[in-house]
Amino acid sequence: MRAVVYRKPFEVAVEDVPEPKLEHPNDVLVRITSSCICGSDLHMYEGRTAAEPGIVFGHENLGVIEETGPGVAALQVGDRVVMPFNVACGFCKNCQAGFTGFCLTVNPGFAGGAYGYVAMGPYPGGQAEYLRVPFADFNCLKLPPGTEHESDYALLADIFPTGYHGCELADVRPGETVAVYGAGPVGLMAAYSAQLRGASAVFVVDRVPERLAKAQSIGAVPIDFTAGDPAEQIKGLTGGEGVDKGVDAVGYQATSGHDHSKEEPATVLNALIESVRPTGALGVPGLYVPSDPGGVDEAAQRGQLLVSIGKLFEKGLRAGTGQANVKRYNRQLRDMITAGRAKPSFVVSHELPLGEAPDAYRKFDRRVDGYTKVILHP
Amino acid sequence: MRAVVYRKPFEVAVEDVPEPKLEHPNDVLVRITSSCICGSDLHMYEGRTAAEPGIVFGHENLGVIEETGPGVAALQVGDRVVMPFNVACGFCKNCQAGFTGFCLTVNPGFAGGAYGYVAMGPYPGGQAEYLRVPFADFNCLKLPPGTEHESDYALLADIFPTGYHGCELADVRPGETVAVYGAGPVGLMAAYSAQLRGASAVFVVDRVPERLAKAQSIGAVPIDFTAGDPAEQIKGLTGGEGVDKGVDAVGYQATSGHDHSKEEPATVLNALIESVRPTGALGVPGLYVPSDPGGVDEAAQRGQLLVSIGKLFEKGLRAGTGQANVKRYNRQLRDMITAGRAKPSFVVSHELPLGEAPDAYRKFDRRVDGYTKVILHP
Amino acid sequence: MRAVVYRKPFEVAVEDVPEPKLEHPNDVLVRITSSCICGSDLHMYEGRTAAEPGIVFGHENLGVIEETGPGVAALQVGDRVVMPFNVACGFCKNCQAGFTGFCLTVNPGFAGGAYGYVAMGPYPGGQAEYLRVPFADFNCLKLPPGTEHESDYALLADIFPTGYHGCELADVRPGETVAVYGAGPVGLMAAYSAQLRGASAVFVVDRVPERLAKAQSIGAVPIDFTAGDPAEQIKGLTGGEGVDKGVDAVGYQATSGHDHSKEEPATVLNALIESVRPTGALGVPGLYVPSDPGGVDEAAQRGQLLVSIGKLFEKGLRAGTGQANVKRYNRQLRDMITAGRAKPSFVVSHELPLGEAPDAYRKFDRRVDGYTKVILHP
Amino acid sequence: MRAVVYRKPFEVAVEDVPEPKLEHPNDVLVRITSSCICGSDLHMYEGRTAAEPGIVFGHENLGVIEETGPGVAALQVGDRVVMPFNVACGFCKNCQAGFTGFCLTVNPGFAGGAYGYVAMGPYPGGQAEYLRVPFADFNCLKLPPGTEHESDYALLADIFPTGYHGCELADVRPGETVAVYGAGPVGLMAAYSAQLRGASAVFVVDRVPERLAKAQSIGAVPIDFTAGDPAEQIKGLTGGEGVDKGVDAVGYQATSGHDHSKEEPATVLNALIESVRPTGALGVPGLYVPSDPGGVDEAAQRGQLLVSIGKLFEKGLRAGTGQANVKRYNRQLRDMITAGRAKPSFVVSHELPLGEAPDAYRKFDRRVDGYTKVILHP
Repeated sequence: MRAVVYRKPFEVAVEDVPEPKLEHPNDVLVRITSSCICGSDLHMYEGRTAAEPGIVFGHENLGVIEETGPGVAALQVGDRVVMPFNVACGFCKNCQAGFTGFCLTVNPGFAGGAYGYVAMGPYPGGQAEYLRVPFADFNCLKLPPGTEHESDYALLADIFPTGYHGCELADVRPGETVAVYGAGPVGLMAAYSAQLRGASAVFVVDRVPERLAKAQSIGAVPIDFTAGDPAEQIKGLTGGEGVDKGVDAVGYQATSGHDHSKEEPATVLNALIESVRPTGALGVPGLYVPSDPGGVDEAAQRGQLLVSIGKLFEKGLRAGTGQANVKRYNRQLRDMITAGRAKPSFVVSHELPLGEAPDAYRKFDRRVDGYTKVILHP
Repeated sequence: MRAVVYRKPFEVAVEDVPEPKLEHPNDVLVRITSSCICGSDLHMYEGRTAAEPGIVFGHENLGVIEETGPGVAALQVGDRVVMPFNVACGFCKNCQAGFTGFCLTVNPGFAGGAYGYVAMGPYPGGQAEYLRVPFADFNCLKLPPGTEHESDYALLADIFPTGYHGCELADVRPGETVAVYGAGPVGLMAAYSAQLRGASAVFVVDRVPERLAKAQSIGAVPIDFTAGDPAEQIKGLTGGEGVDKGVDAVGYQATSGHDHSKEEPATVLNALIESVRPTGALGVPGLYVPSDPGGVDEAAQRGQLLVSIGKLFEKGLRAGTGQANVKRYNRQLRDMITAGRAKPSFVVSHELPLGEAPDAYRKFDRRVDGYTKVILHP
Repeated sequence: MRAVVYRKPFEVAVEDVPEPKLEHPNDVLVRITSSCICGSDLHMYEGRTAAEPGIVFGHENLGVIEETGPGVAALQVGDRVVMPFNVACGFCKNCQAGFTGFCLTVNPGFAGGAYGYVAMGPYPGGQAEYLRVPFADFNCLKLPPGTEHESDYALLADIFPTGYHGCELADVRPGETVAVYGAGPVGLMAAYSAQLRGASAVFVVDRVPERLAKAQSIGAVPIDFTAGDPAEQIKGLTGGEGVDKGVDAVGYQATSGHDHSKEEPATVLNALIESVRPTGALGVPGLYVPSDPGGVDEAAQRGQLLVSIGKLFEKGLRAGTGQANVKRYNRQLRDMITAGRAKPSFVVSHELPLGEAPDAYRKFDRRVDGYTKVILHP
Repeated sequence: MRAVVYRKPFEVAVEDVPEPKLEHPNDVLVRITSSCICGSDLHMYEGRTAAEPGIVFGHENLGVIEETGPGVAALQVGDRVVMPFNVACGFCKNCQAGFTGFCLTVNPGFAGGAYGYVAMGPYPGGQAEYLRVPFADFNCLKLPPGTEHESDYALLADIFPTGYHGCELADVRPGETVAVYGAGPVGLMAAYSAQLRGASAVFVVDRVPERLAKAQSIGAVPIDFTAGDPAEQIKGLTGGEGVDKGVDAVGYQATSGHDHSKEEPATVLNALIESVRPTGALGVPGLYVPSDPGGVDEAAQRGQLLVSIGKLFEKGLRAGTGQANVKRYNRQLRDMITAGRAKPSFVVSHELPLGEAPDAYRKFDRRVDGYTKVILHP
C-alpha cells in the first residue's frame, strides 16, 4: 500500500510498504480516509528526534473498518471510526483511571504509546492506506456512517481533545477568563474549548497576524506579543487582575518576543505565571521534553528550565501537564460535532490526497502558503 | 502587655508593648493561651527578610475571647477560639472560593495576610498576652471550652492544616502511596494527614535521625537521603514504580544530599518529580519565594529555579502550590481532634512560658536540645 | 416608602410602610431599582402558605447603596449591587462550605433565610423603594455602575443562578444531553445554563405552546407532554438511550399530563427517572415541601410522595436537591452577562413601575397576557 | 466439576456440572479458591426472584488462573486474581466513565452484568471449582501470589467495595460524621470504609445485638433502633445537628422498628433523611428494585415507595444510588489490604468447604449459629 515514509531530515516520500495485517485477536484493520499532519510530526521531520528512516508517519487517523480480529466484540466491518493518537490497552492501572495517554501495556518500559511516532511503541502511522489498531474495542470511537463532518471528526484524534485537555488541566469553568499562549492549531482548539466550556473571555497570544486573526474570528481577544509584554497586555485588559486560568499551547520551542529566531524555552511558562491571577491554574498541553540535544543550554538539554517557581508559589497556582488522554474527551466532543454544537474544522487549511504529502510537509514546516493544518485523504 | 518583639537578626526579646484595642466593629480581642513558634518565624529571626525591628511575632494563635466589637454576631466573651495564621475577610472573590490564604481585602495590593509577619499586613502577632482579630466571625474557630487538647488545637492555626493542605494539593486518596520530603513539623503533619486520608504507605525523606524516627513512630517509612538518592530508594520500595503522590514540605532552603551546608533550592522539587509515578500529583506547601537576596545564584535571587519540567511533562504530573487556606480544613481537623481521631501534638517538643521565648528561638534556630516545635503559653 | 404588601389571598397592595433603617454595623440600605416577581411569591399570594397579611414581598433585588453601616468594609454609597434571594452570614459551617442557601445564622432554628418570604426570617422584601441588607459585604454583589444590563443582572438574584444550580446538581458537562422539565422562567434558565455549560442537546418539557416556543428560540428541543409520554418522546429522540442528565424545574405542583387541573406531585420526578439513562444524574431545583396542607392525599400533605426509587436504584442515578446557593454562582454569571456571553433577560415579559404590582400579580397568577417574568422598577 | 446449584426455593445442592471452557479469545478460566455467599444470593434462594432451577450461584470469586485465551494480554496461568461481581467489558460508554456496574456490552438490553445471578447475563457463578471470566484483562485484579490475606482479598469481589461505594456515593470526607443504617456485612464494610476515609464518628443502626457489638468492636457507635427512633438517637449524640452523611445498607427489605416481622420498605430511607443534616448527602448501596411481586402494597410491587421528598428538598440533600462499580475501588482497597492498612475479614463468620454450602445457605438464611458471612473454599 502507499504510505508517507520518513527518509531523512526534511524529506518524506510516499512509498509502497507492506499492508498491515491483524496480529492479535483484538486488532482491527482500518482503511484510512483522513489522516492529519501534526505539528509534532515536524519534530521528526526536522531531524530533531531519534526517528529512524523508514518510519510511517501519522497519528491522527480516521477511517472505515476493513477487518476485525476474533476477539473484537463491539466493532464491525464497515464501521467508521476515529482513533486517539494514544495507543492504549484500556485495562492497566493508568487506563482504568482515565490516563490513557500513559498506558502501561502498549509500550513496555514507558507510560504511553502512539502511532507513527519515535519511541512510542511498534505502531506504524496512518498516513497510509491502512492502519492496524490494537485493542480495537477500546481504541476505536464509532462515528455516524457516511462522510459528514469528516474534517471535524478527524480532529478528534488529537488536536481538538488536546486543546480541550489544556482547559481541563487548567480547570476552566463557566464565566472565567482564560489566556491561551500559542495560536497554532492546538492553541486555537484550546481557545475554542474554553468557549465551549463557558469562558467569559479568552485571550490568545501569538505573533503571527493570520493566527491572531483566526483567534479573533472565533471571538477570542488577540494579543500580539511582539507589541509588548503579553502578561502586561492581559493585565491591562482585565483591570490589572490577570486571568483566572491559562493554557500553554506552545511548549519548549517558544521563542523570544524580541528575536523570533532565538529559542527561550521557558518564556511562555513564565509569561503564563505572570498572566494568571493568584489562586488560578495552568494547563500545559504544550510539549516539554526531558532530553533535548538541541537545547539552548546544558540545562535545557537535560530538560531543566528556569521556571518562576517563587512567583508560582506566591500566587498559589496549580498546574497540570502532559499529553492528552484523548479517550477521556473524544466521545463528548464527537457528540458536540454531531449535534452541530462544535465545528473545529475552522483550523483546517488544506485537504490533500496522500500523494501531496511531501509537498505539504515542506510547506507546513516553513509555514508558507497558509499551511497550518493539513488533512491527507489516502 | 508582654510580647515577643523582634530586635535584630538572631535576637528577640519579651517586652512591654501597648495592648491591642478593638479598631473595627468586627474585631475581637483574644487573650492568648497558646502561640506556637513556626519555622517561618525563623526566616525573620535570621534576618533574611525585610522585617523591621519592633514587629511582634506569632501567627499560630489560640486563646479566649476578652472583648467583642458591636458587629460581631456569633462569638461571645469567654469563647475559646483558634485563628488561622491567614487573616481573611470572608467575602472577597478569593475567600468566597475557599482561597482564604489569598484574601484580597486584608492586605491591600497583595493576595493574602497574616499575623506577625513581614509584608503580610498590619496585624501584630500573638506571641503576646492579647491579640486583635479582625473579621472575627470568619477568622475565629470555636473550640470546646476548657483546656483539653490545648496543644493539639493550637496546631490548627497553621501546621496541621498546612500539612493537610499538602495532601489536598496532591489529591491524596485512600489506598495511595505518598512520599513526603521533609520531616520537620509540616512534613510530619503532611505524613500524618496522608494516613488520616487513608494512604496505604507513606515515605518520609529527611536526613536527621530524630526526625526520621518520629516519622517511623507514626507508621511512615523513613528514607534517609544521605544514604542514597531518595527517589531511587522510594522506587526500590515500590517495585520500581514510584509513589502515586508527593508532598514537598521543605521548600527553597533545601540542601544538597552530599553537603548539607550547601543550598540546592530545586533539589527537593526535582527529587519529587523523580519519585512520583506518571499520572501522579505533587503538593507543594513548602515555601518558594519570588525574591531571595540570599539566593545561591542570580536566578534563584529572582525566584527562578532549574526545574525538571521536561520530566514533569513526560510523566503528565499535576502540581499544586501555595500557602494553606487554613479555614478550608480547620473545622474538620478540629472535629477529628475532638473525637480522638487525630492527635497531632506528637510533634510538639516544648511547651514554655512566654518569658522563655528568646531562649526558645535561639535553640530552635540551631535545632539543638530537640527543639522542633515550641508552644508558648503567655 | 412605597412597598408591595400582602393583604390576603389573591390581593397585594402598594402601601406606605416605614423605611428600613440600619440595624447592625454590617448592614447597608439599598435603593431598589429592580425587583422581580417570582413564581414562589405566588405560593404566598394564593394563600397556600402561613404568610400573614402585612408582609412585604420581593426576594429578587437589585439597586444602589444609599447608606452603609460602620462595619461594612468593601462597599460604598453609590455602588450598584444585586443580592441573592438567600440571606446568608458568610461564616457559619454551611456558608463556609458554599451552602449559602442553608445559612445557620440568619434564621435561627432553620437552615436558610430569604427576603420577603414566610418563615425565612425577619427580612422584609425588596418590592419597595428601599431594602435593608444584612451582612452586606457578603450578600451584595457589585455590578458595573450605570443601568446597562439591568434586566439581566436582576435575574442574578434568583432565577438565573437557580436554573444554573439545577445543572450543577445534575453535574451537566460539555457534550452531554439534558432534559429539563418545566419551561417556566427557572426551567428556561436551566436549559440556557445547560447550553452555556456546553450541552450538546437540551430537551425542554412543558405543555404551554408559548413556553415551548421560547425554549425552541434558544435552541432547545421542545417536548409537549400532552402529545405523549415525555420520557418516551425523549428516548425516541436519543436513540432509545435517554438523556445523560435531567433537571426538575417544576416541583410538587406538577399536574397530570392527561388532566392539567389535577395535581400529580411526583409525576415530574418519576418522568425524569424514566428519561435519564443509567449512570445519569438529576438536579432538582423545583420546590418540594415537607408539609403541604393542600396536598392531594394524606402522604403528600406530610411531604411524602410515591417515588420510583426501585428504578432510580436500578439505573444507579444520583440526585441533588434544594434551593440554590446563589452566592456560589452569581459572580461568574455576572461576568458572563458583562462580557456579553449570557443574556438571560430573554425570559422577561414585563418591566413595570411598582404601582402596577397588584395588577401584575393578578395577571401573572393567572398566566394571562403573556405574564411570565415581571421586573418591578420602584 | 462440583458446583452449588439452585434447585428450588430454600434448596441448593452441590452437584456435578460441566466444566466451563474458554468461549472467547479474551476469556480466562479460574480455579476458584474462595467464593463467598452473599446476602443477595438469598433473594434467589428464598424464591423471591425469577431464578430458574439449575443456576450456579456465586458472584464473589477469587482464584488462580488455569487457562488463558489467545486475546489475553496481561494475565498468565498461575496468577492469583479476584473478580468484581460485576461483569464488564471495559470499553463501552459506561465502563469507560468508571460505571462498570452498568456495562452496556455484557448483558444486552440491560445496563450491568454479574456472575451467577438471575437476569444479569449468561455468566454461571463461582461457587464451583472453576469459573470462566470474560474480558479477563479488564475483570481480573491480580493479587500477590500465595494464600496470604485470602479472606480479606475475597471480600474485594463485592462487599468491601460495596460498602466503600456507599461512602463514595455519600461523599464521606475526613472529619465528617456518618450514619450507616444496617450492620450486616455491607453495613459493616460501609462503617469500616468511612473510618478508613477519616470520618470523625460513625454511627451504625441495627437491632441485632451481635451485629451492633461487631460495629462497636471497630470503633463505631452502635444505635439500637428498637430502643427508640434512630434519627432522634443520632441527633441526640450530635448536639441536635444530625450527621454530615448517611449510608443506607439495608434497602427495600427494611422492617418496622416496632414489629420486625413487618416490612416497611421506605423506613430506612426516610430515617436517613431525618438523620442527616441540611446540605448533607446519602449513599444508597442497599438494594431497591423496580418490580417486587412480594411487595407490601401495590406501589411497592412496582418499585414506588413513599419517600420524604419534601424534607429531602428542604434540607438540600444529595443522594447517590445503585450497585457498586467494584472496579473503581478494588485496586486501592487491595493495596490497603496488602499494606496491612485494612483487614475487612473481621466480618467473616465461617470458612467452609464447598460441600457444606447447602447447610451454610440454610443457616445463613435463618441467621442462626452466627452465620453472617461465609466463604466457601472449593
